[in-house]
Amino acid sequence: MIGIFDSGVGGLTVARAIMQQIPGYDIVYFGDTAHTPYGTKSRDTVIGYTLNNIKFLLNRGAELIVIACNTASSIATAQVLKQFSAPIFEVITPAVELAVQTSKNLNFGIIGTRATVTSGIYEKQIIEHQPRARVYSVACPLLVPLVEEGWLDRAETAMIVKKYLRPLKTRQIDTLILGCTHYPLLKKVIQRKIGKRVHLIDSSISVANRVNAFLAANTGIDRRLGRNGYLRLFVSDVTDQFKKIAEMTLKTKITFECVRT
Amino acid sequence: MIGIFDSGVGGLTVARAIMQQIPGYDIVYFGDTAHTPYGTKSRDTVIGYTLNNIKFLLNRGAELIVIACNTASSIATAQVLKQFSAPIFEVITPAVELAVQTSKNLNFGIIGTRATVTSGIYEKQIIEHQPRARVYSVACPLLVPLVEEGWLDRAETAMIVKKYLRPLKTRQIDTLILGCTHYPLLKKVIQRKIGKRVHLIDSSISVANRVNAFLAANTGIDRRLGRNGYLRLFVSDVTDQFKKIAEMTLKTKITFECVRT
Repeated sequence: MIGIFDSGVGGLTVARAIMQQIPGYDIVYFGDTAHTPYGTKSRDTVIGYTLNNIKFLLNRGAELIVIACNTASSIATAQVLKQFSAPIFEVITPAVELAVQTSKNLNFGIIGTRATVTSGIYEKQIIEHQPRARVYSVACPLLVPLVEEGWLDRAETAMIVKKYLRPLKTRQIDTLILGCTHYPLLKKVIQRKIGKRVHLIDSSISVANRVNAFLAANTGIDRRLGRNGYLRLFVSDVTDQFKKIAEMTLKTKITFECVRT
Repeated sequence: MIGIFDSGVGGLTVARAIMQQIPGYDIVYFGDTAHTPYGTKSRDTVIGYTLNNIKFLLNRGAELIVIACNTASSIATAQVLKQFSAPIFEVITPAVELAVQTSKNLNFGIIGTRATVTSGIYEKQIIEHQPRARVYSVACPLLVPLVEEGWLDRAETAMIVKKYLRPLKTRQIDTLILGCTHYPLLKKVIQRKIGKRVHLIDSSISVANRVNAFLAANTGIDRRLGRNGYLRLFVSDVTDQFKKIAEMTLKTKITFECVRT
């Protein structure tokens, strides 16, 4: 199975992108809703949660892991690669590579959680590809709770998005990385506020592309993955609200299985 | 020592109220910042966290416990009273009693987290005192993240507060319970939006009164409590942002001790 995890239900945008690009693969998803959000927490805490989540997915039969959380990807990838031998994908690198191919003027914007922005991972990777790049990052900590409330089309959300994007508007960026798996749900308002000439890089789509290319090149692993179009959703806590957002993201009725981790 | 805990740093409004009303008592505070927020999580998860927090405080020498979190108070009090013999105070009952004494027209408003509002505890307790009362409750899930961002005086916060309070404005309430320990930090904007004729009940102040009265009546316990004006702050996760809000609440420089629970 393809194992996917996130701090909560935001990472279902990645599951959705994978199901659209390589339909039919069996997926086991874990949302760590008992500890959500990660983006406001410290490095050590996020690393600890991430290691637990990967162990859980491997125990459930995952052969390949996707870290569908920018905060965990930013902070814990190095540790994770040391500790596990299964193929593990994170959302940062594919987004950076796509952004670098997309930008003409090498002015990049990054939006993400406070933990992701503080990690500096996007700047570092972009500069490795393009030493002349200029990278402007803004932490947008209120966007996760706004998405989790389902306030996607509200005037208040548009106002807050506008406020967060203001420092990027003056920087002539032509490419903006949505550095949090919740943000694809706000794509419309972000595009409206940043202006239609700026390319948005959706990390859920770029990581799904990456998994797709990997499986095409690694048929041994590909053959081990089930293809019954099966999606099993585990969470560490269930509430009606988590269910509502999950159904909004996947556009279908879902059932969660709750596990104490 | 007086032991106080909250899901995060919002409960420091209760520590502040206790330090103002009965100055000098030694306090040990635990903020469960690794699991914050509680207000969006399920009943079982909140009960589990609450029992752990109380055990931690008792192990650190607390002789009396204050649950400085409306969500935990709403959901876990019955379990907690079964399990521990130390005197334990929660924030609901004192606020309800003060509200019932305050209201003239018996139209009450309650604002709180989704978990607190769903529990129905305020309605139940108010109706026990005043069977003719009408109680209108609104869940305000975005107020906790707004406070945690320090957005106390922002236009966006005022707009969101206004939207949440709108259903209460039409109900002629004369008393509004701030059913979350974060909300005292938004008192000004809440008062402005609900109108100056509505009495706000601040549960941090009413629980501090209650502890004060208890200690006056129970001199045996009172004598066992240290009085060196000592405040020790434990958290399960440390970030700059948690520190910033804590310092904003206590209006002094603070040091956190981080413990993994």
